[in-house]
Amino acid sequence: MSIPAFASDIELTAGVLSGAPLTRRYLSDLRGSFADLAAYERALQTGNPLLYSVSAVDAPQGDGQLNYAVGTLLPGRVGPEYYLTKGHYHARREAAEVYIGLSGEGLMLLENEPGETRLLPLQSQKIVYVPGHTAHRTINTGTAPLVYLGVYPADAGHDYGAIARNNFRHVVVEQNGKPVMIERAAFKP
Amino acid sequence: MSIPAFASDIELTAGVLSGAPLTRRYLSDLRGSFADLAAYERALQTGNPLLYSVSAVDAPQGDGQLNYAVGTLLPGRVGPEYYLTKGHYHARREAAEVYIGLSGEGLMLLENEPGETRLLPLQSQKIVYVPGHTAHRTINTGTAPLVYLGVYPADAGHDYGAIARNNFRHVVVEQNGKPVMIERAAFKP
Repeated sequence: MSIPAFASDIELTAGVLSGAPLTRRYLSDLRGSFADLAAYERALQTGNPLLYSVSAVDAPQGDGQLNYAVGTLLPGRVGPEYYLTKGHYHARREAAEVYIGLSGEGLMLLENEPGETRLLPLQSQKIVYVPGHTAHRTINTGTAPLVYLGVYPADAGHDYGAIARNNFRHVVVEQNGKPVMIERAAFKP
Repeated sequence: MSIPAFASDIELTAGVLSGAPLTRRYLSDLRGSFADLAAYERALQTGNPLLYSVSAVDAPQGDGQLNYAVGTLLPGRVGPEYYLTKGHYHARREAAEVYIGLSGEGLMLLENEPGETRLLPLQSQKIVYVPGHTAHRTINTGTAPLVYLGVYPADAGHDYGAIARNNFRHVVVEQNGKPVMIERAAFKP
């Protein structure tokens, strides 16, 4: 049995990892994610654009193993709210994740189960440490694709349910050309 | 208690992570690592240059947590053998590591306990997956610093002892301007 090492190429322009399957999320997949419901329905009537893709290696499972994925989130807005990923907790709540910004300009929105919030920059040469027990969503506040790499324990798993039910408590919207975070409860379309 | 997330900046030119302590390894720290013992002694008599540095975040410990570090390995040779890191197993043998090439040009030398070897390219936009139970050493085969990021389980630990006793079974040397891997047993200074 030889050493089960392997290599991947990050194809930045395409936002993919060589040889890894690509999952695509379109506007229609993000129903319930954006705060401005009317703007979401209007946007869907004019098309169903790709919002983001995730290219994840089919990596080894088991104790001590890691998985990694490249995410590419396109620029755009629904109403005043920037394009975003669904966001998730890890199914195994203890599992952390290290995000490495590769290109573009954006933010990482974090929230824990008591409802506390953090917002951290995510862009080239920035690393964001997402601790365990923390839901995470990326947001593209720029004009180019936001591309990043995430590394996480192989047994982390994904739990989209908690966010799908309640969403994050805060939204990030454009105000006077700049991203501003406000409470969802205070958002007025 | 707020969310214990944090961010780091990769300062590529300096090869450091913002706010992280830097460990420096000089030629004198690499005694026993290079195959050409006479060339090593001659090199030490002319100076004690920095070979590499590691900038590791003082990250959280515990189940599911990750740590990460930026390594910067300078270009150069001792005899025909390229500058290299000491190399290590993880103390917890199951722990894998994901390496992301940031700049420069080099190789990752891998060896497991049965003595099998793999050699994989490490450079910008390349990722190398180092599985558990695998000793790993980086080698700079280029003319600029080789800079890379490693992400690993927080409880991985470092075991330098096995490599310090036996070294890797293979060496990577320059032959006609190109890197070539040969068995240590076959190396003739």
